[in-house]
Amino acid sequence: MKALVYHGPGQKAWEEKPRPTITEPTDAIIKMYKTTICGTDLHILKGDVPAVTDGRILGHEGVGIVEETGSAVTSFKKGDHVLISCISSCGKCRYCKKGMYSHCEKGGWILGHLIDGTQAEYVRIPFADNSLYHIPANADEEALVMLSDILPTGFECGVLNGKIQPGNTVAIVGAGPIGLAALLTAQFYSPAKIIMIDPDDNRLETAKRFGATAIINNSKQNAIEAVKQLTNNIGVDTAIEAVGIPATFELCQSLVGPGGTIANIGVHGKSVELHLETLWAHNITITTRLVDTVTTPLLLETVQSKKLDPQQLITHRFKLSDIINAYETFQHAAKEKALKVILTNE
Amino acid sequence: MKALVYHGPGQKAWEEKPRPTITEPTDAIIKMYKTTICGTDLHILKGDVPAVTDGRILGHEGVGIVEETGSAVTSFKKGDHVLISCISSCGKCRYCKKGMYSHCEKGGWILGHLIDGTQAEYVRIPFADNSLYHIPANADEEALVMLSDILPTGFECGVLNGKIQPGNTVAIVGAGPIGLAALLTAQFYSPAKIIMIDPDDNRLETAKRFGATAIINNSKQNAIEAVKQLTNNIGVDTAIEAVGIPATFELCQSLVGPGGTIANIGVHGKSVELHLETLWAHNITITTRLVDTVTTPLLLETVQSKKLDPQQLITHRFKLSDIINAYETFQHAAKEKALKVILTNE
Repeated sequence: MKALVYHGPGQKAWEEKPRPTITEPTDAIIKMYKTTICGTDLHILKGDVPAVTDGRILGHEGVGIVEETGSAVTSFKKGDHVLISCISSCGKCRYCKKGMYSHCEKGGWILGHLIDGTQAEYVRIPFADNSLYHIPANADEEALVMLSDILPTGFECGVLNGKIQPGNTVAIVGAGPIGLAALLTAQFYSPAKIIMIDPDDNRLETAKRFGATAIINNSKQNAIEAVKQLTNNIGVDTAIEAVGIPATFELCQSLVGPGGTIANIGVHGKSVELHLETLWAHNITITTRLVDTVTTPLLLETVQSKKLDPQQLITHRFKLSDIINAYETFQHAAKEKALKVILTNE
Repeated sequence: MKALVYHGPGQKAWEEKPRPTITEPTDAIIKMYKTTICGTDLHILKGDVPAVTDGRILGHEGVGIVEETGSAVTSFKKGDHVLISCISSCGKCRYCKKGMYSHCEKGGWILGHLIDGTQAEYVRIPFADNSLYHIPANADEEALVMLSDILPTGFECGVLNGKIQPGNTVAIVGAGPIGLAALLTAQFYSPAKIIMIDPDDNRLETAKRFGATAIINNSKQNAIEAVKQLTNNIGVDTAIEAVGIPATFELCQSLVGPGGTIANIGVHGKSVELHLETLWAHNITITTRLVDTVTTPLLLETVQSKKLDPQQLITHRFKLSDIINAYETFQHAAKEKALKVILTNE
């Protein structure tokens, strides 16, 4: 089969690889139908994730069709249309039993990381019963690719950890795909204000279309002053960090009001300065989280009931065999006005 | 009357001051019976709290007898025995309505800070209806001085924010009075392990007597390794920071396991380094809080029902007029084996 293979920092190729086979009774082999590229894949290609070694097939998102199942798989059979979770969950360890699948002792985020991933014609999914979801009949399968990672990430790490409630004020720092996923799912809880902060006007316009009540271009405006004005000098109830650099985490510390929450989504490569000299008395909460994907079934319901339209996050489409060009587009997302790209295995 | 007056960094005197009078209809004048000295008073004397100006009477804890009430006070009358909360609460602002009295727009921590405090023969208490508590008949009034600040602080900022649950593992970094207050109130929730970490053997022995299941002297032992051994290499569910310096907050970041909480109690004078480069994916929560004293009624019940014995925090007793010597003892608490000192207005 063909697959997108990582060959060390800056090196990737669309090349021939052996088709995966069942190695554990809890495995399933999936024929990929659609997949996508994640910001994390770009981090890997930069060499930021050294656990990913030469020869690894990338990708941790997608939908496909079950080709074969191991003897212990009971919830799926050949021919089933499935959504693949970015998180593999054994369902048996102490973390899985707490619903913290991200820290599963045998799974967690392993796809396209510690084992071969979904940017390929076929993929082996371990712990299939707990790591795949049935796609409802008549669902828009392409849109559901957004439920593999980006929507549960924005929802669990940003919205749920951020404790968004009706009438609250929310600031989301970063209007990339993850920030926009948080914006879309924040609206389940009817906050009074969602303020979107980003240096890119095009992304801010998208945010406005997706439901932001205010937008702030922090390359042109002082975001701290602007948020003060929008919140009667109080600050926000929830500040969501959706970038992953010290400057944006620092900004969140200045935006959050007494009693508020900073929900970190960003993947950070460096430590940050935490201003406990003022924050110790501000009654705030800071949360971090690698997505657990415990809310995937809930999110599937919101898509079916039309409370959530994941399709709008998709801006570009390619054939899977054209994935090198798709990476090119996604690597220049701001210039290309790209959010998420879809790759179809035709 | 006589009072302990702050005269700038390092300067204090027991001297004559005018007796306070009712200035607002919601005020009460309390004749002090017993008060104490807080670590915060030492911070003020070091000059760390510049909002405290020359001439201010210190102190924000104590019990006393109502001497006079303003026309709007309905819950208290002359002769009532009362517990004074360190936090004054108007009961009407947006923060009070959320139970976040610490950020009351007209109150919060003002006693012995922005207005004259309790280390005096008399004190004016604003918003008396919301800032005083009736002392139950037959209660040990001296012990209740521990409910003005230290016990609600340990309980709210450490135990409640730390989400301690039955069967959990807890590490408390700092075995001073606040760390011990957290230790005593943590036991309400029946955690499996409470590990106390401090460089002072005497305080650790006290911690053991107060219910710690393990003690670690981190001047002699590697606390990170010791906690790993005690928790099967997982780390603790809750790490409580009860010191207020970068090193102890840093230690908490190394002790907390995936999914755990760092509950900060310490008063910090400097920013700290937050290791988001690893913690972003550890699903942790960090909380900060200035005590709200919303749990004072609950804590009074736990004392009455003998689930909590605040008396054991008291190690030294002085006449109020001997307060300069009491400060001397409290400033050398480790050497003097002092926890809390009681000052009695005889």
